[in-house]
Amino acid sequence: MMTSSIEVLRDVEALYFAYADAIDHDIDTWPDLFTDDAIYKAIPRENYDRGFPLAAIGCEGRGMILDRAMAVRSTTVYAERYMRHAITNIRVIDGDAHLLEARANFAIYETLERSTTRLFAVGRYIDTIERRDDGLKFKQKLCVIDGNIVIGSLIYPV
Amino acid sequence: MMTSSIEVLRDVEALYFAYADAIDHDIDTWPDLFTDDAIYKAIPRENYDRGFPLAAIGCEGRGMILDRAMAVRSTTVYAERYMRHAITNIRVIDGDAHLLEARANFAIYETLERSTTRLFAVGRYIDTIERRDDGLKFKQKLCVIDGNIVIGSLIYPV
Amino acid sequence: MMTSSIEVLRDVEALYFAYADAIDHDIDTWPDLFTDDAIYKAIPRENYDRGFPLAAIGCEGRGMILDRAMAVRSTTVYAERYMRHAITNIRVIDGDAHLLEARANFAIYETLERSTTRLFAVGRYIDTIERRDDGLKFKQKLCVIDGNIVIGSLIYPV
Repeated sequence: MMTSSIEVLRDVEALYFAYADAIDHDIDTWPDLFTDDAIYKAIPRENYDRGFPLAAIGCEGRGMILDRAMAVRSTTVYAERYMRHAITNIRVIDGDAHLLEARANFAIYETLERSTTRLFAVGRYIDTIERRDDGLKFKQKLCVIDGNIVIGSLIYPV
Repeated sequence: MMTSSIEVLRDVEALYFAYADAIDHDIDTWPDLFTDDAIYKAIPRENYDRGFPLAAIGCEGRGMILDRAMAVRSTTVYAERYMRHAITNIRVIDGDAHLLEARANFAIYETLERSTTRLFAVGRYIDTIERRDDGLKFKQKLCVIDGNIVIGSLIYPV
Repeated sequence: MMTSSIEVLRDVEALYFAYADAIDHDIDTWPDLFTDDAIYKAIPRENYDRGFPLAAIGCEGRGMILDRAMAVRSTTVYAERYMRHAITNIRVIDGDAHLLEARANFAIYETLERSTTRLFAVGRYIDTIERRDDGLKFKQKLCVIDGNIVIGSLIYPV
């Protein structure tokens, strides 16, 4: 059981680092970090700040999230590139016994095989996390990307 | 009240992440993180390591810090670029009931509107933090920038 | 004594940040963070993932680690470049009273004197840490670099 805010923060950090590890090393475990009814969206900051409707790429429910993980594995470019998520500035800004509001920054690096590494994207996670008996899960995950990423061209989740 | 070192470290981390959030999203709240008599300076590492006098850009007292925040808002380029602070390696290296000595690394990314993101600067914070009844505030903040930044050309604080 | 997992995690974070600080600011203190029988290796991810034998650059025992620190200091390029380690996603994934298994991500930035900063390398630390009366020390440190770094050309440790 999580009782103090220090323990909650530690568990939230562990969830974020498991999330990064899943995308960077084991995409099949990525869907396990979401609730069944989870919403996952990636959106450019410009649209987010102006209140534009959330962008095309998004998953509603764990079925779509599973589909997305499988799509990553089946693309021909999957084995040719590595991702690396540095997740920082993790904060729990609100919460009760059932839900937590968390924020974090991400910097994602991409490495093409036999090549050098480049900065892929930076931005912010705006997340709602559900506290369950079996641990923390993302109930809503909004990835707000600072740069002008063509969302539809994303291979890996952000 | 902060009693154990784990709680102190958690509160210091929260101060740094509020600092990043202020610059990246809400510059008006940035001055609230400093004491009335706070000193804020940005200096290239080359000068710092050689003991050269602290560089031109600097604020002495909260009035100058407020002026600086207002100057950021009034520049014509304000709305055209986003900053993103990744603050890592946060350490409390000394402290008593009144003051804490903290260190952290920063990596700052800049995104011009409708453009891609680039690394803007990396370096180290060398900070003295005051412990007050209303929380932690920066009493002295020294931003040592690794690269050859033209300090006078900075728009946002580091 | 470390008893709870939160305290252990805090101490592991402190070890990583001391490690970064040593390389970035005071290479002479870097060997102090290893046990006498420590193994240190740097390897490209491509080799690691395919189970290839660990690459050329590696130290077995603290004597070789000391030699390596001295070699850094004696190169002519030492004073002309700064390194900056951002260590994130720190996790303790296993452990007992004597040993801990830890993982972390690194992003290393390089700054040539009077020049700008560039991303040098990103990757993952796969480490075994020994718990001793005098604190934590690395017993085995494996630095898996995502990009196609020519390992033999490394000046600073990763």
